[in-house]
Amino acid sequence: MLLVVKSGGEQALPEWRAGFADVAPELDVRWWDEPGLDPALIDYALVWDPEPGRLATMPKLRAIFGSGAGVDAILRDPHLPTHLPLVRCVPPEGTQRMGEFVCWAVLSLNKDARRMAIAQANAVWDAFDPPFAAAARTVGIMGLGAMGLRAAEMLRGLGIPVVGWSRTRKIVDGITCFAGPAELPAFLVRSEVLVCLLPATPETVGLIAAPLLAQLPQGAGLVQVGRGAHQVLPDIIAALDVGQLSGAMLDVFEMEPLPADSPAWRHPRITVTPHAASLPSRHERARYIAECIARHQRGESLPNLYVPERGY
Amino acid sequence: MLLVVKSGGEQALPEWRAGFADVAPELDVRWWDEPGLDPALIDYALVWDPEPGRLATMPKLRAIFGSGAGVDAILRDPHLPTHLPLVRCVPPEGTQRMGEFVCWAVLSLNKDARRMAIAQANAVWDAFDPPFAAAARTVGIMGLGAMGLRAAEMLRGLGIPVVGWSRTRKIVDGITCFAGPAELPAFLVRSEVLVCLLPATPETVGLIAAPLLAQLPQGAGLVQVGRGAHQVLPDIIAALDVGQLSGAMLDVFEMEPLPADSPAWRHPRITVTPHAASLPSRHERARYIAECIARHQRGESLPNLYVPERGY
Ligand SMILES: NC(=O)c1ccc[n+]([C@@H]2O[C@H](COP(=O)([O-])OP(=O)(O)OC[C@H]3O[C@@H](n4cnc5c(N)ncnc54)[C@H](OP(=O)(O)O)[C@@H]3O)[C@@H](O)[C@H]2O)c1
Ligand SMILES: NC(=O)c1ccc[n+]([C@@H]2O[C@H](COP(=O)([O-])OP(=O)(O)OC[C@H]3O[C@@H](n4cnc5c(N)ncnc54)[C@H](OP(=O)(O)O)[C@@H]3O)[C@@H](O)[C@H]2O)c1
Repeated sequence: MLLVVKSGGEQALPEWRAGFADVAPELDVRWWDEPGLDPALIDYALVWDPEPGRLATMPKLRAIFGSGAGVDAILRDPHLPTHLPLVRCVPPEGTQRMGEFVCWAVLSLNKDARRMAIAQANAVWDAFDPPFAAAARTVGIMGLGAMGLRAAEMLRGLGIPVVGWSRTRKIVDGITCFAGPAELPAFLVRSEVLVCLLPATPETVGLIAAPLLAQLPQGAGLVQVGRGAHQVLPDIIAALDVGQLSGAMLDVFEMEPLPADSPAWRHPRITVTPHAASLPSRHERARYIAECIARHQRGESLPNLYVPERGY
Repeated sequence: MLLVVKSGGEQALPEWRAGFADVAPELDVRWWDEPGLDPALIDYALVWDPEPGRLATMPKLRAIFGSGAGVDAILRDPHLPTHLPLVRCVPPEGTQRMGEFVCWAVLSLNKDARRMAIAQANAVWDAFDPPFAAAARTVGIMGLGAMGLRAAEMLRGLGIPVVGWSRTRKIVDGITCFAGPAELPAFLVRSEVLVCLLPATPETVGLIAAPLLAQLPQGAGLVQVGRGAHQVLPDIIAALDVGQLSGAMLDVFEMEPLPADSPAWRHPRITVTPHAASLPSRHERARYIAECIARHQRGESLPNLYVPERGY
């Protein structure tokens, strides 16, 4: 069984190999650009951002595994073999890490950790009173999938009120759920801290822009852990500068790495993190993908499949 | 009924007055150093750090309210009228805020937020892999009182394993509890992130020093939200520099404000916060103290009393 890998660069290959060796020693794990590798021998591909057209050159390919939960960088390939199953990488550690990150980000906004970090950088004892406990502000989560639901549950564990919004209506204990474009305004008006955990699709791209931000309660916080394509950074900065937003935690950007001259780096109310919200260890991801391959071999159904009709 | 206030400086008086006006309009709230104020008219005192001897000059004083949960700065008064009830300020918002802060601090350590803050200050996209999910490290809480128990409960809500240590043994669902000096080593060896929520007493002062730090698992994290007197800062820095500790969140210091030349400010693995872990709003604290005064007037028992025999 041959698995070809393009994720994390060639330097990540030994770690992937070590991960698979532990759980699927029979798997032959090769680097995507290995000289002389015959495409006709490849059974499975594990990729983050394959060059357009390459996957279509593998005649025996049986399934494609994304190395992250979002597969938008794979969908950019116009020659993507769409008849093959495309599996999003969502091991339990991935949702746990995302839940932890969202809790950390929401608490960071409510405690004004950015102000504390700036004070530390200047060696200034800036003993301000945070205006409220985190539990005093309702968090609104856009996207109640694998990631959003775990984040909601963990926020509830901290005593924080949560509302949610998704395409189809969810029923979740202790969470007020909104659905579809018609209910977006009612959701936004409740969201004192807005968390984006949507996939990047034609419907969601560019959503976090001035019209949406204007519908939030004044002084709202923003946690952006979806995809950079969701946001219009100048609109976020404008909302911060007039106080419509009080702070933003941005983990994803239109261009990654974020260029050194981006105004986000130095903005006093923006915290930049390097797309670090939820990266399960390669070991955990290898375990999850090996399990998927074993299921596939046995002819069983695969979890977290990309659904072309929905676009995510 | 006359309440004299010394907490937050004279500039905080209007806020205290507004808080009390809402819940106990009959209360006459005065500044501690009001010229001409007759000490014989004072019924209650609300203080953080009264000058030694002053409380003893108030002949009609009936109870003393600390403006924080720790009353060590009040106990420094050698003439403290110890026959009077001394009430620690622990409104529900106080334990909630502390729980939130501890969760934020533990997540900050596990995600290496300090490294991310330094990267942002340098406008560098430093995409490192955090080695583990927060839930992979056990948090050990020293002090299972009002603050420690709420923090434990909220950490459990995030899926994080918790062990605890106190003077007398506690029985808490889902938490392994250790008690007394004899069980301290067994507790420390389990504490991959150590949280200090002890009061400052002769038994606990200076506890967070080299001998204790050496008993933690290598690479442990430290969250210090007790009192500055608990810690020996040079020992913490030495443990960080050899990797025995991987990071420290310090909210309390021997001298506050922390002097600008303290090495803590610039250490790459120390996050400094300005004694900000749990300050409920003055409004919430006024509500709590007004309730206590009403109970006292009705001859009912007071909550969160300082117990001289225990020293906390
Ligand atoms: N920053 C990071 O490190 C990181 C890591 C992992 C994932 N992510 C991001 O998080 C996203 C979500 O991951 P997931 O595993 O939770 O995905 P998922 O299980 O597919 O869930 C997606 C959610 O978004 C909702 N949604 C999709 N299109 C919508 C629309 N047009 N309007 C309203 N709601 C819509 C879906 O609604 P339905 O429930 O009705 O289908 C679903 O609730 C990923 O696509 C990725 O962009 C970021
Ligand atoms: N940084 C901040 O903003 C902030 C804010 C509030 C409070 N604090 C600190 O947090 C402390 C705790 O507050 P709290 O309201 O939770 O106090 P508390 O209810 O009195 O609880 C104190 C806990 O410490 C334990 N303890 C005391 N002495 C001990 C010893 N020698 N060995 C082992 N355990 C010992 C007690 O054990 P038993 O259960 O057996 O009595 C109890 O579990 C305060 O004193 C203050 O220093 C800091």
